[in-house]
Amino acid sequence: MNMSPKPSGTIPDRKIYERRESGVRSYARSMPRQFGRAQGVWMHDDQGGRYLDFLSGCSTLNYGHNHPLLKQALLDYIAADGITHGLDLHTDAKEDFLRAFEEVILTPRGLDYRMMFTGPTGTNAVEAAIKLARKITGREMVIAFTNGFHGMTLGALACTGNAAKRGGAGVPLSHVAHEPYYDYYGPEVDTAELLEQRLSDPSSGLDAPAAILVETVQGEGGLNAASPEWLRRIAEIAKAHGALLIIDDIQAGCGRTGGFFSFEGMGFTPDIITMAKSLSGMGLPFALTLFHPELDQWSPGEHNGTFRGNNHAFVTATAALRHFWSGDEFQRDVARRGALLETRLDRIAAEHGFETRGRGMMRGVNTGSGELASAVTAACFDAGLIIETSGAHDEVIKVLAPLIIDDATLATGLDILETKFRQAMAADYAVAAE
Amino acid sequence: MNMSPKPSGTIPDRKIYERRESGVRSYARSMPRQFGRAQGVWMHDDQGGRYLDFLSGCSTLNYGHNHPLLKQALLDYIAADGITHGLDLHTDAKEDFLRAFEEVILTPRGLDYRMMFTGPTGTNAVEAAIKLARKITGREMVIAFTNGFHGMTLGALACTGNAAKRGGAGVPLSHVAHEPYYDYYGPEVDTAELLEQRLSDPSSGLDAPAAILVETVQGEGGLNAASPEWLRRIAEIAKAHGALLIIDDIQAGCGRTGGFFSFEGMGFTPDIITMAKSLSGMGLPFALTLFHPELDQWSPGEHNGTFRGNNHAFVTATAALRHFWSGDEFQRDVARRGALLETRLDRIAAEHGFETRGRGMMRGVNTGSGELASAVTAACFDAGLIIETSGAHDEVIKVLAPLIIDDATLATGLDILETKFRQAMAADYAVAAE
Amino acid sequence: MNMSPKPSGTIPDRKIYERRESGVRSYARSMPRQFGRAQGVWMHDDQGGRYLDFLSGCSTLNYGHNHPLLKQALLDYIAADGITHGLDLHTDAKEDFLRAFEEVILTPRGLDYRMMFTGPTGTNAVEAAIKLARKITGREMVIAFTNGFHGMTLGALACTGNAAKRGGAGVPLSHVAHEPYYDYYGPEVDTAELLEQRLSDPSSGLDAPAAILVETVQGEGGLNAASPEWLRRIAEIAKAHGALLIIDDIQAGCGRTGGFFSFEGMGFTPDIITMAKSLSGMGLPFALTLFHPELDQWSPGEHNGTFRGNNHAFVTATAALRHFWSGDEFQRDVARRGALLETRLDRIAAEHGFETRGRGMMRGVNTGSGELASAVTAACFDAGLIIETSGAHDEVIKVLAPLIIDDATLATGLDILETKFRQAMAADYAVAAE
Amino acid sequence: MNMSPKPSGTIPDRKIYERRESGVRSYARSMPRQFGRAQGVWMHDDQGGRYLDFLSGCSTLNYGHNHPLLKQALLDYIAADGITHGLDLHTDAKEDFLRAFEEVILTPRGLDYRMMFTGPTGTNAVEAAIKLARKITGREMVIAFTNGFHGMTLGALACTGNAAKRGGAGVPLSHVAHEPYYDYYGPEVDTAELLEQRLSDPSSGLDAPAAILVETVQGEGGLNAASPEWLRRIAEIAKAHGALLIIDDIQAGCGRTGGFFSFEGMGFTPDIITMAKSLSGMGLPFALTLFHPELDQWSPGEHNGTFRGNNHAFVTATAALRHFWSGDEFQRDVARRGALLETRLDRIAAEHGFETRGRGMMRGVNTGSGELASAVTAACFDAGLIIETSGAHDEVIKVLAPLIIDDATLATGLDILETKFRQAMAADYAVAAE
Repeated sequence: MNMSPKPSGTIPDRKIYERRESGVRSYARSMPRQFGRAQGVWMHDDQGGRYLDFLSGCSTLNYGHNHPLLKQALLDYIAADGITHGLDLHTDAKEDFLRAFEEVILTPRGLDYRMMFTGPTGTNAVEAAIKLARKITGREMVIAFTNGFHGMTLGALACTGNAAKRGGAGVPLSHVAHEPYYDYYGPEVDTAELLEQRLSDPSSGLDAPAAILVETVQGEGGLNAASPEWLRRIAEIAKAHGALLIIDDIQAGCGRTGGFFSFEGMGFTPDIITMAKSLSGMGLPFALTLFHPELDQWSPGEHNGTFRGNNHAFVTATAALRHFWSGDEFQRDVARRGALLETRLDRIAAEHGFETRGRGMMRGVNTGSGELASAVTAACFDAGLIIETSGAHDEVIKVLAPLIIDDATLATGLDILETKFRQAMAADYAVAAE
Repeated sequence: MNMSPKPSGTIPDRKIYERRESGVRSYARSMPRQFGRAQGVWMHDDQGGRYLDFLSGCSTLNYGHNHPLLKQALLDYIAADGITHGLDLHTDAKEDFLRAFEEVILTPRGLDYRMMFTGPTGTNAVEAAIKLARKITGREMVIAFTNGFHGMTLGALACTGNAAKRGGAGVPLSHVAHEPYYDYYGPEVDTAELLEQRLSDPSSGLDAPAAILVETVQGEGGLNAASPEWLRRIAEIAKAHGALLIIDDIQAGCGRTGGFFSFEGMGFTPDIITMAKSLSGMGLPFALTLFHPELDQWSPGEHNGTFRGNNHAFVTATAALRHFWSGDEFQRDVARRGALLETRLDRIAAEHGFETRGRGMMRGVNTGSGELASAVTAACFDAGLIIETSGAHDEVIKVLAPLIIDDATLATGLDILETKFRQAMAADYAVAAE
Repeated sequence: MNMSPKPSGTIPDRKIYERRESGVRSYARSMPRQFGRAQGVWMHDDQGGRYLDFLSGCSTLNYGHNHPLLKQALLDYIAADGITHGLDLHTDAKEDFLRAFEEVILTPRGLDYRMMFTGPTGTNAVEAAIKLARKITGREMVIAFTNGFHGMTLGALACTGNAAKRGGAGVPLSHVAHEPYYDYYGPEVDTAELLEQRLSDPSSGLDAPAAILVETVQGEGGLNAASPEWLRRIAEIAKAHGALLIIDDIQAGCGRTGGFFSFEGMGFTPDIITMAKSLSGMGLPFALTLFHPELDQWSPGEHNGTFRGNNHAFVTATAALRHFWSGDEFQRDVARRGALLETRLDRIAAEHGFETRGRGMMRGVNTGSGELASAVTAACFDAGLIIETSGAHDEVIKVLAPLIIDDATLATGLDILETKFRQAMAADYAVAAE
Repeated sequence: MNMSPKPSGTIPDRKIYERRESGVRSYARSMPRQFGRAQGVWMHDDQGGRYLDFLSGCSTLNYGHNHPLLKQALLDYIAADGITHGLDLHTDAKEDFLRAFEEVILTPRGLDYRMMFTGPTGTNAVEAAIKLARKITGREMVIAFTNGFHGMTLGALACTGNAAKRGGAGVPLSHVAHEPYYDYYGPEVDTAELLEQRLSDPSSGLDAPAAILVETVQGEGGLNAASPEWLRRIAEIAKAHGALLIIDDIQAGCGRTGGFFSFEGMGFTPDIITMAKSLSGMGLPFALTLFHPELDQWSPGEHNGTFRGNNHAFVTATAALRHFWSGDEFQRDVARRGALLETRLDRIAAEHGFETRGRGMMRGVNTGSGELASAVTAACFDAGLIIETSGAHDEVIKVLAPLIIDDATLATGLDILETKFRQAMAADYAVAAE
């Protein structure tokens, strides 16, 4: 296997970025290369280097880069002058997607949802979800959770926990209360019961909620995976208090944690689901808000957006649904690979006295230190492995490899991680010993 | 010329839409066909009908559907496994876009802006713009205008004037004041001076603004075109009161009203510009927020988003910039065609005692009645012409033909409009005479 | 007549104020004396000086200081151990007040209101009024006006126009839009019609209002007196758009501008009225929110407050109502005296090319300059006349003499004002001529 | 001892209340009598009945009704034409109060505060406190607590926990987070540490607070008494996170729980203190916001109000301070009597398996049921004892006797309570046994 990142001296002239791109860019800072093409689990820079991608566009590329089948479907569609942009008009591509989603996803799971094509980003899907919940319930307050991440537009940002992101708003973020997530106060405290107590207390100061918005695994928040019991209890609490349960499945869905929906088999059904990231299968902008038919109380055009029908994404999403989700092979394969990942990460973590986090193919090691985690991921990058951190202090090294990675390549990447982890720890001890 | 929309009896089975797509859809209601492919100014339905597109995805398809040059660039890029999704990493496609934008757009116009790639929808670009303005000024209030339209996410929606859209928020929309737009109180009242008076009065109740957010021509608001003098005065007022001037060029930009930016030649330079819609040239989701380098005070990642680097859109946008905007031929052509459009619309309007609105290739007829306007556009659609309304009461018939339309086809479409207008008025008089 | 303010050298030791009283105090700065007792129109300082009071506690002492009749009623009540504090329990004093208000005020005017005893300050009465309007209409937005003043607590402060006051909130002040008051854009522009246009336009960005909150004469805002026609039109607009009309009569009511209510004889009836200031007649804290019986949709205790039944104030208020308002003598007397005041102020204003403002016994001269106005009022104070400024720039010298002042004393005060005005203008010209 | 409440058949004609007083009244509903006079611990109705007052105007009458000494001071002041209303001018009465507060309260306790005379109600004092904290810190969020009660105007209401009160706002109550109070999740969970964890977590969604606003004993919230350790920890947390600590001492202060300030001897010093209720000593409207001199960053007049200088209240407050607080006799007496109260309530509670709550002379029995508590208090009222409930479900019977009550009378009242409690329980059992 040939991973050959070039030494940093050969980085191309990047003055155009400094001159013309806003300093808000972030990943380009920790991965200072210029990338040209990508295929499957590999990204290639313009110096001939290639990189194993354990980031997958933050779980946007669950099926890898430019999957041949999706790519061909898109090429054919474009070549045939298929509708590229059609506002929310009916198109063949949209119909195909609706049918595929119904046949492949909803019907086999016994689920009944309507699809709302919001602006093609996760934050738009979240905005639509909370708008709908507020409209239906006539309530304003949304309960979100500590360390939750839901987007950057004002409505979604109010639901996001991260202080640095929140600080960018420039106005107070209102109408949202952040309650403690699963295990937030440690395993002894059942935070679902704390929430139940507050909602049942007419003098708690917590206004009656329109919705409870929750991720089953908090991607940006540090790969905290709520237990099915806790989530089921949250679902009960929402129902008992007249709130809609919104599962934000933008990062954990599309197979990342196992099923197509991350909550499958947990014994509850959300009222509303938000999806984006890997939905198009190829990294194209696409987002969905799903809700039970009886919740479909929008007036025509009450929430709209120019790009709400991204037909290219319909095409690749349809191909992805039919290819990966028609049977259970893919899902079983991911489950098996997730177990492999768990084993290896547990070993790495145990070696240094750390703990792992996450579920399925969405796992990481909590190093307890943002500095350490960054040192490890930077060393990995120099060795040709793209890998990132998450968590309140960026202290969790997260593995978000494409789900289609073969076992050997997964092992290769984890070998790099293991080595670089060990080296960083050694360097750390060396420093500490001085 | 063969326009052959099929009678409505042949509409395909649409139960899948009713069963699975949210009722929030809107355009599909007034244009109940299913579309399969499109090329240039023509859309084709699945019954063999073809339609002349005078809507252009609400100005998202200024260069028509699937322009051959853009299409080929995209096909080549996909075939070569070009990066599809790369978060905000540096990619060849992004570099090419940055260079093209600098060389073709900024440098020739003597403009100095940095580009922020927000989530690829207009509303995300607006959210980023107002967040930045609030962050920089430390103020919270944004001044927007009556009949303005800026998007559907909570921050942008607060800037949008439309009550039905606002009502979907489910929470009060705060931190924005809507001031009267150009000519809002008729030609006698200079609304810029009203604004100046209020801002200069420490007891007016209007808090010091972070930004003034304005469209040069209000697309959704009814094709109201502010005069250059008024806009220049607004720019002066913003500067005098320490507010940033944000031009929302999402609909009026990219040549729709003449120049690449709609404010060119008007004697002022915005602090921040938002772009989307026709930016990618082919209808792909793409949005930009531009601002002066000294305003680039974001922390890395302070505003982010999964799809902020849509590389497919970079590719087509670069091709579009270099093809259409390297010289002034396209722009002159559009200006000439806009004059043709003006002449024809003036004639239609004058025939019925109405007035025209707009600028460049963004023009319409104010019928004064939503019922009348809808009757006309519905009749046009039956005759194979896709055309829509805008305005507070949907009373303005708007012509948003692709800018690349040839004169003869433009005339054909306007002939249909003229005829259907006349028939609708006759029917109306007939009714009135009964 | 002996007015003998002492030279400032004899001001008592004021270190206790600097040491222990917050610097938020304001009047004590421009009137640096210590006052001990007061009777009628006169205040006495602790150095033997006496001052003619043309401020009347900002219209809180319409019947003068310690009116003998009110004072005696209160002394008797206290001596008899009348209930001082009784929460909102029924008391003899409250019953007497309710009866007096019904018999003397409501019945003769054919008005039907219920009384809500809010916390005994004007701002509490305004908070109760807007809460009720929002509760009843299910809407959140309140329309207030430029230069309006309604109080300092968060809900009322949002309705207040003054930027310095608003700036003290520390949070954005939301859910209120400030529309231009009568004549705000000069006599040519009918601002009521501007408001009607905005409210009738579903795309104006102005959300449907719960209430329109307006003063008939803006006390703090510069003695702007709206015309009866304008106010009547505002009442119509409120009704047409489903908003409740709230007249804030805290400063202009209780006879200050003529009738007991400032809107009497103007041809409309407010839905809600707020009163405070001179309501108790003797300067005791007392406030009322009045509304039509069908608007009395409060749940018991939904809005409460410890001091909502100030029985001492009930006693003096009852005495004041029965003494001053049982017949029309007082009102005619005030009208006559208001005319006198108008004549004198017109003369003073005309001498210097200025204009007068206001109505009834609530009048002033707009000097166009805060510096000039302050110079005049400071000189008046040194000459034994307590008089203050108002307006966005403190540019209006306002005369708020007790309504019970006799003509001769009123003339004496106005003589001082006239002289000091002339001297200040002369000094000003002298400076200008240098 | 002669308590002779009349049977309810003799209630006077109350049509005037139904006709003219808003239905928002509450206490008058559970105590349907009309009261005329009151002295010490006794209230007298207009039918010759007398009632022992265990409510004391919700702790507004700590020194009883119309205390002879205070009453005489006020009579003398009024008779001498002392200034009744003087805005915020310096007056003899204000100076006396400032001196008394400094000499009697601040200096002996080694405390250094400035006094801000807000509008004379508790809610105004709270509004001023949070405005100041926001202004000083530049932050918007205030942390309040579950079951906290702070007032009814919009800023204070946002800090209040009670859902019924909050629901009256008609707008969302923002910029406040309610955190769990002492023992909210039971004795096992240290809620101060939960708060510390959330504030230390940059991803908790809890914005950096301007202030932590807390009652040492929650009067309306059910007589929950926080431990000194917990309060001290809250003080540390506030300091560590740059927030100001505001003690709302409106109900628990002025001796109710022991010291003049309720936090005395607990080992911390608040940045800001709010006072009202018993401050005037006689039930007159009066409120204070105290803060450290370096926090006195108000501009003159930035927060004001017509009744911010209630001179009658200055007079009675000064008399009360000098009489009750010059030595420690009163305080020792209250402590002793509080112990008596505790013993008796413990006995009553134990008899029925309930628990007591509170501290000092602010104690009650948690019956666990609003129905039961109401049944007991209603029976007490019929027996001539005025007593009320508090708590989220009105389940706590609270004893707020005047602090000056003699031991025998206290015992008499408690005898009634004990008897009525027993009878209600017996009736309850009887019902349960059916």
